[in-house]
Amino acid sequence: MDTKEGCHFDKETGLTEGLPCEGVIVPPTLESISGQRYDAIVLGAGYAGLVAARDLATRGHKVLLLEARDRIGGRTWTSVIEGYPYEMGGTWVHWGQPHIWTELSKYDMVDQLEDSAKGLPGVQHSTSYYFEHGKRTVSLAEDADNLKTALTAFCDVDGELGKTVLPIPHKPFAAATEFTKWDQISAAERFDQIKDRLTPDQQGILLSTIVTASGASADQLAFTEILRWWALSGYDSEAYMAYVIKWKLKCGQTGLSLRIFRDALASGSLSYRFSTLAKRIDQSGGQVTVTTSNGSQHVASYLVCTIPLNTLNDVVFNPPLSRNKVLAAAKGQVNLCVKAHAEVAGTDQRSWWGIAYNKRPGMMAGAFGDGLTPAGNTHLVSFSLNGAFQNTADRGFAEMKTAYEEFTSAEIKRLLYHPWAQDPLSKGTWAMYGPGFATRFKRDLQASQGRVHFASADWADGWHGFIDGAIEQGIRAATKVSTELQKVPSARL
Amino acid sequence: MDTKEGCHFDKETGLTEGLPCEGVIVPPTLESISGQRYDAIVLGAGYAGLVAARDLATRGHKVLLLEARDRIGGRTWTSVIEGYPYEMGGTWVHWGQPHIWTELSKYDMVDQLEDSAKGLPGVQHSTSYYFEHGKRTVSLAEDADNLKTALTAFCDVDGELGKTVLPIPHKPFAAATEFTKWDQISAAERFDQIKDRLTPDQQGILLSTIVTASGASADQLAFTEILRWWALSGYDSEAYMAYVIKWKLKCGQTGLSLRIFRDALASGSLSYRFSTLAKRIDQSGGQVTVTTSNGSQHVASYLVCTIPLNTLNDVVFNPPLSRNKVLAAAKGQVNLCVKAHAEVAGTDQRSWWGIAYNKRPGMMAGAFGDGLTPAGNTHLVSFSLNGAFQNTADRGFAEMKTAYEEFTSAEIKRLLYHPWAQDPLSKGTWAMYGPGFATRFKRDLQASQGRVHFASADWADGWHGFIDGAIEQGIRAATKVSTELQKVPSARL
Repeated sequence: MDTKEGCHFDKETGLTEGLPCEGVIVPPTLESISGQRYDAIVLGAGYAGLVAARDLATRGHKVLLLEARDRIGGRTWTSVIEGYPYEMGGTWVHWGQPHIWTELSKYDMVDQLEDSAKGLPGVQHSTSYYFEHGKRTVSLAEDADNLKTALTAFCDVDGELGKTVLPIPHKPFAAATEFTKWDQISAAERFDQIKDRLTPDQQGILLSTIVTASGASADQLAFTEILRWWALSGYDSEAYMAYVIKWKLKCGQTGLSLRIFRDALASGSLSYRFSTLAKRIDQSGGQVTVTTSNGSQHVASYLVCTIPLNTLNDVVFNPPLSRNKVLAAAKGQVNLCVKAHAEVAGTDQRSWWGIAYNKRPGMMAGAFGDGLTPAGNTHLVSFSLNGAFQNTADRGFAEMKTAYEEFTSAEIKRLLYHPWAQDPLSKGTWAMYGPGFATRFKRDLQASQGRVHFASADWADGWHGFIDGAIEQGIRAATKVSTELQKVPSARL
Repeated sequence: MDTKEGCHFDKETGLTEGLPCEGVIVPPTLESISGQRYDAIVLGAGYAGLVAARDLATRGHKVLLLEARDRIGGRTWTSVIEGYPYEMGGTWVHWGQPHIWTELSKYDMVDQLEDSAKGLPGVQHSTSYYFEHGKRTVSLAEDADNLKTALTAFCDVDGELGKTVLPIPHKPFAAATEFTKWDQISAAERFDQIKDRLTPDQQGILLSTIVTASGASADQLAFTEILRWWALSGYDSEAYMAYVIKWKLKCGQTGLSLRIFRDALASGSLSYRFSTLAKRIDQSGGQVTVTTSNGSQHVASYLVCTIPLNTLNDVVFNPPLSRNKVLAAAKGQVNLCVKAHAEVAGTDQRSWWGIAYNKRPGMMAGAFGDGLTPAGNTHLVSFSLNGAFQNTADRGFAEMKTAYEEFTSAEIKRLLYHPWAQDPLSKGTWAMYGPGFATRFKRDLQASQGRVHFASADWADGWHGFIDGAIEQGIRAATKVSTELQKVPSARL
């Protein structure tokens, strides 16, 4: 099946929209208890919503899963093209991401793990663009050393590798005073504090790494966001790379999300509606009513809302969202990255990295070989510099293509991407925060309001912005709702 | 409530058996569907069994949990004495242990985490005993440096910190050829390969660390067992210590195991019998029958067997266990450690470590301050050298007390321990393997036989011997059984 989402380009067909995706659910509606009141409605079928729906439905609670898209997965989905799985959003996992790892373990899918950086043919170097230093070629070993030196200098704010700021990286406010202090400055400000200790190559790879990680410019990004990845990855540069861009799933992320969805479905307690946009959420009289854009109304005892941060204010809540939720959603998370895939001729680029940082719009910040396609070409994945490409008429395609062509010397056979920042259902890519945002808003974003529980990777305690964070949030929301439902046995009848 | 287990000594009352434990379940029997056939029987209420029972019962499957002890927790349980929680078995956790971490996340218990090595008063040094080098005093910083040098040399077999041997530490045979090669030698043989590069202090702390980790002598232990801990901890010495002995739960492990047990109970699908020893397991006619020592028989469609490795041959299986399961259980895991707690006067020892290695029986291999009691004393935890103390008449008490007195200069107010190696229900402490054991037996130990699924920390893929491994196994067994039960809908009626 094809989803309506995703953009694809090759020379024969030009730019087209819509991509194959096994996560498209047919039929799009299944209502086993139509007309009845549900125990819980779960809004959104990304990982947070899927896991919440599964944990509730397998416990025998009657669940309605409402999803505006035509597919499961939210900001994580796989398109298999000519036998190769392209991850349009969330991709990499690691056993240091406990919630996703537990899912892989549960479904006996550890064997699906694939090292995307192992035994690489090709050039074994990077091409780096950093301001006036021009186009430089650096060996991969030198790059790793440069990143180690630079990232360690960047994160080691306390002579203890940042451990006094994030001693328990899954508990962001464990050292609240220290965290709050460092949360006020941007990544650019922290860079300015240490840049004199770094060579131009080290500066370049550090800034490229920062903006690749964030899909924002360094002055828009909180320093603590990079520190958080660093701490979650064991306070080490090599581990950082292994935790965040090394291990993929052979079956694609959609393979895992389908497994979770089918598990929920097999319970017999799951109803669902895809391509159904929630417009309004009313709480009154001990129940929650969701009104959709086509006017249908759905009633439940509880709601798990997984709507992303940047679109949270697009839904009417009555009673309204808390002031800080409204302000946080208005401010938004800052990641407007375009993650774009290219299939390029040959295998030379399989071990190639592109690394760039400057103020010029329309560049890539980073790219690297991430696989070999069955046709014998290289799959490159790239991340835009300083957020989204600007032209909405063509979904940023022309700028993205130009950037890619500047970046790689290989012949481009195919390009594909989903413009997450232009997507009205996400308005951004994986969540990364601006300075002060975590301190000011994270706890408020996590707070429940009456019978509505908010679960999104965007405000997870640990790996926020990651698949792991989505699952963390989904598990917790299900426990909350299930505990509430157990207090009222009649709700289960 | 008191469990029958555990030994306690103070000068007033001398040696007594039985300790307070919140994990003792009253009433000891709850059979909601007496006389009926269960969907599944779970044998053993340690973490593996609790999690399997919870995952099955909350899915609406009718479960009978059978436990020979009078309490939940298996080899992990907490005794609170004068307001202080002593962990009689499994203790430390870390977010790098994904399965236990997901449980903490699920039940919103991350706030229970406590750094047992933070802000310590006292002497800030270790006392080290290593062969003819006599009694030495070394600063903690020097100890950390010595361990880093020695453990890195020990584990770095490939110039890549062991990553080519265990590239995915949760998947032990990911690099089967390399792993199998290194699995054949003992920790003592590996030590001999690198000892000339180490100072006596480095040799001493390394050997003490090895035998503390294993509860065996270095020649009985597979080298890969230490390499596995190292790999699971991120291939780093400091991380190794943080992963395995840093973070405890304020509520005690029994706080978490009770939460899981109560979650299972709230489903209404859990029956249980404590103090009920399984003697015989028969499979025939599409069902499993468990016969207990008091002659009662219990029938189910499936069985999850969490009986520890060293006692697996004490139960009669019909049809019999596979040849390799029998051989593996006969060979057994090698950890016969006595983990013993002392409350010692004052706070001097809170930052003290004892480190020892020699061939003399009746010593401790390692000890350290692990907390301050409400009475203002220090809680020391210690691990015996070269396995169990020998005298079974007094449960090894006199030897243990002498060893402790030799080891610490502080006045001993209280001693407590459980002699796991003398316990007929475990016959050993946390599972550690001899040379070649993993290669030869691990996959066979994990294999199901018909309707019987085997789940124990003793043969977990990743953190075997840890709480995390128990939960890994429990989750997987529940998925297997639940998937089977869903194929036969009538089994749920």
